[in-house]
Amino acid sequence: MTASDSRRLVILTEGQFRAHNAKTAMGVIRYGTDEIVALLDSSIAGRNVSEWLPGHDIPAVATLDEALAMPRRPDTLLIGIAPTGGRLPDDWRAIIVDALRAGLNVHSGLHTFLGDDAAFSAEAAATGVEIVDYRRPPERHETAVGRRHRPGSRVILTVGTDCAIGKMSVALELRTSALKAGDNCVFVPTGQTGMMIDGWGVAIDRVISDFAQGTVEWLTGEAESRGDWVLVEGQGSLDHPAYSSVTLSLIHGSTPHALVMVHKPGLANHDFDHLPDVSFPIADLPGFIRLHESVAALIAPTKVVALALNTSLYPDDADARRVIEDISRATGLPAADPVRFGGDELWASIHQAVEALPWVLANDARATA
Amino acid sequence: MTASDSRRLVILTEGQFRAHNAKTAMGVIRYGTDEIVALLDSSIAGRNVSEWLPGHDIPAVATLDEALAMPRRPDTLLIGIAPTGGRLPDDWRAIIVDALRAGLNVHSGLHTFLGDDAAFSAEAAATGVEIVDYRRPPERHETAVGRRHRPGSRVILTVGTDCAIGKMSVALELRTSALKAGDNCVFVPTGQTGMMIDGWGVAIDRVISDFAQGTVEWLTGEAESRGDWVLVEGQGSLDHPAYSSVTLSLIHGSTPHALVMVHKPGLANHDFDHLPDVSFPIADLPGFIRLHESVAALIAPTKVVALALNTSLYPDDADARRVIEDISRATGLPAADPVRFGGDELWASIHQAVEALPWVLANDARATA
Repeated sequence: MTASDSRRLVILTEGQFRAHNAKTAMGVIRYGTDEIVALLDSSIAGRNVSEWLPGHDIPAVATLDEALAMPRRPDTLLIGIAPTGGRLPDDWRAIIVDALRAGLNVHSGLHTFLGDDAAFSAEAAATGVEIVDYRRPPERHETAVGRRHRPGSRVILTVGTDCAIGKMSVALELRTSALKAGDNCVFVPTGQTGMMIDGWGVAIDRVISDFAQGTVEWLTGEAESRGDWVLVEGQGSLDHPAYSSVTLSLIHGSTPHALVMVHKPGLANHDFDHLPDVSFPIADLPGFIRLHESVAALIAPTKVVALALNTSLYPDDADARRVIEDISRATGLPAADPVRFGGDELWASIHQAVEALPWVLANDARATA
Repeated sequence: MTASDSRRLVILTEGQFRAHNAKTAMGVIRYGTDEIVALLDSSIAGRNVSEWLPGHDIPAVATLDEALAMPRRPDTLLIGIAPTGGRLPDDWRAIIVDALRAGLNVHSGLHTFLGDDAAFSAEAAATGVEIVDYRRPPERHETAVGRRHRPGSRVILTVGTDCAIGKMSVALELRTSALKAGDNCVFVPTGQTGMMIDGWGVAIDRVISDFAQGTVEWLTGEAESRGDWVLVEGQGSLDHPAYSSVTLSLIHGSTPHALVMVHKPGLANHDFDHLPDVSFPIADLPGFIRLHESVAALIAPTKVVALALNTSLYPDDADARRVIEDISRATGLPAADPVRFGGDELWASIHQAVEALPWVLANDARATA
C-alpha cells in the first residue's frame, strides 16, 4: 500500500496517448485528484487532452523542457502506460534521466521497477527526489486464512468479460454514486492505475501467486475497517488466456457478497493486442454470469447483481441506451453505462439487491449472535 | 528450471517427519533417484524410515554429526518440509550453518530463499558449496501468448479436490505406467518437490501472478519438445481458499487435453492445517468434475477422463477396492489408486480416452493441414 500527497504531474505517454496502452494516463486524468500540468507526447504536441477527454484541459507538449517551463512547474513525472508485460520502452530512459536531473519525482506502475535501476536511483539520490514503483508488492507474504467479513460490511467486486474495458472506472463511478447516496463507501485499488488515483492498494498481478489470494483477503479487511460498502477493483477476466488466475485470486480472495459484471457490447474478441493472430471470443453473458456464481460459490456464495456496460462502441446515445435495455432484458439484471450516463440509478439497484442477499443478512446476524 | 546431478542426501525434517508438512521428504524418498543416507530428525532418531515407507531403508539420526559419520558421507542437506507460507523454522538456522561448514550443499524448496541469506551465503562461499533454492522463479517474465499444442502431443494435468493429497505422486506413477506401456511420456514438475525429484521445472506458486499462466504455457511447450505424452503436475485445488488461483493458472496455462481428478475418499474438509477453526468442505465429485470442464473450456476444451483415488483413509485393501468401485460407478469414470495398487490399468484407460478426444484429433490434423 502506498500513500501519496497531492502532486503536480507531467504524464509521459510518448507516442502512445491514443493507443490502447495509455489506460494509466486515461485513468489518472479522469479520476485522479492531482493537478496535471502537461502531457508529454510528441505525437500530439500542440493539441489538448480535452479533444479526447472533454473537460480535461491539459496541453500536450513535445519535450520535457516545455513541460518544465509551464507556469506551474510539475514536481512529478508519471509514466502513463501499462503495456502487456509492463516493460519500460528503451527510448524512454533518457526522458526519465532528464526528469530526475530536473528534480522531478518519477512515479511508475510498470513491472520493471525504476527504483531498482542503478542509473535512475543514482540520479534520484543526486537531486534528492523519489522514485515510486506502484507495482512493488508488499513485503507481507501470507496465504489466505479464510477470514470472514465484518458484520455490517458489504463487499462488491467488479468482474468483466475482458480486461481493459472499465472495471476500475465502473468501481470509481459507483463509489461516487454511493457516497452521494450517503453510503459509507471505500474503493479498493488492486492495480497500479487505481493506486495512483486513490493513493493506496496493491497491484495484485505483481504479487507472488501463492500469496495473491492472501493479499486480496487482507486488503479487503483493511477496506472493511475504513467503510461499510467496499468496492473492490477487478482485474482481467475469468476467461482471459493470460490473466484469469489473477481474476480468480480477486474472486476467491475478497469473497464478495455481490459481483458487478462489466461488459463491452459489440466487442467480439479478447484484448490480446500483442498477438493479433490469436483470437479468443468474448463469452456469452448469461452462461458467463452463472459460471462466475458457481466458481465463486466454491469458497463463498455471491450473486451478479448488476451489469455495467461500456457502450463506447455505440457513438450514438440512443443506440447505446437501446443496447443497454436489450442486455438488461436478456439477462434480467439492472444495467447501465455508469461512465457515460452516470451511476446513481445503478448504484440504487445494487444497494437494494445487496441488502437483500441472504448471506449478507446471515453475516450481519453474527454481530448479535 | 534446474538440473541436478546425482546426490547423496541427508534430509532434514527435524521434529516434523510424521507431520503433514514433511511431504517434500516423503516425495523425494518415494520418487527421487538420489541416494539418501539419513533422515535428520531427533523425534524419531534410532528408528528407520521403512517403518512408515516400506522398502525405504533410511536410518533416522538425531544430529548432523551422526549423518556425517555415516559410511557413505552425504554431500547435500535437503530441507524436507513444505509448510504453509514456506518459511524456515528459526531453530533450523544452526543446522544449516553447520551443514555448510561441513562442506554440504544445501537444497531447499522454501519460499525463504536460503541463498539470499548473507550468513548462509558467506558460509557457502567459504567452503565452496552450493545453496540451491528450488522455488526461485525464472527471470523470464512473460504473459501467456495463446500457444497451441504441437500436433501429436497429448497434455494431461492432474487436478484435485484438495492440496497435499497426491497430485504429484499420481502424475509420477502414471508416468511410470506410461513408459512401461511404450508411451513417450514426460513429467512436468510445477512444485519444489517435483523439481527435486525430476531435476527441472518451475515452482509456479512462486511466480509473479501476472506471469503464472505464461510460465505454465512455456513449461508445457518445453515438455512437448521432450515427449509426446505430457503429464503436468497439478497444484492446490480449484476450491481451495488460499491456492485456487495457482490451480487455475495450471488449468488455463497448460490448456490440457484431459484432466485426471485426484480425490481422497473419506476426507471431509480442506487441508487448512494452519487454521484449525476454519473449515471448508471437500466438494462433491460429479459437480466438481463438471465445473472443472466448464472453467477449462473458457480457454480450451478438456475432459476429466479418470479418477485417481488416494485411499489411505481405508487401511484395509478390500475396503479401499470397494470405495474405488463405488466412486467409479457413481461418476461413470475409470478409477484407481495408482500409488497403492499401481497405475497400469488406469493409464491404459486414460491413453484410450485421450486418443479419442475430438480436440486431440483436430490438433493432430493441423500437422497435415
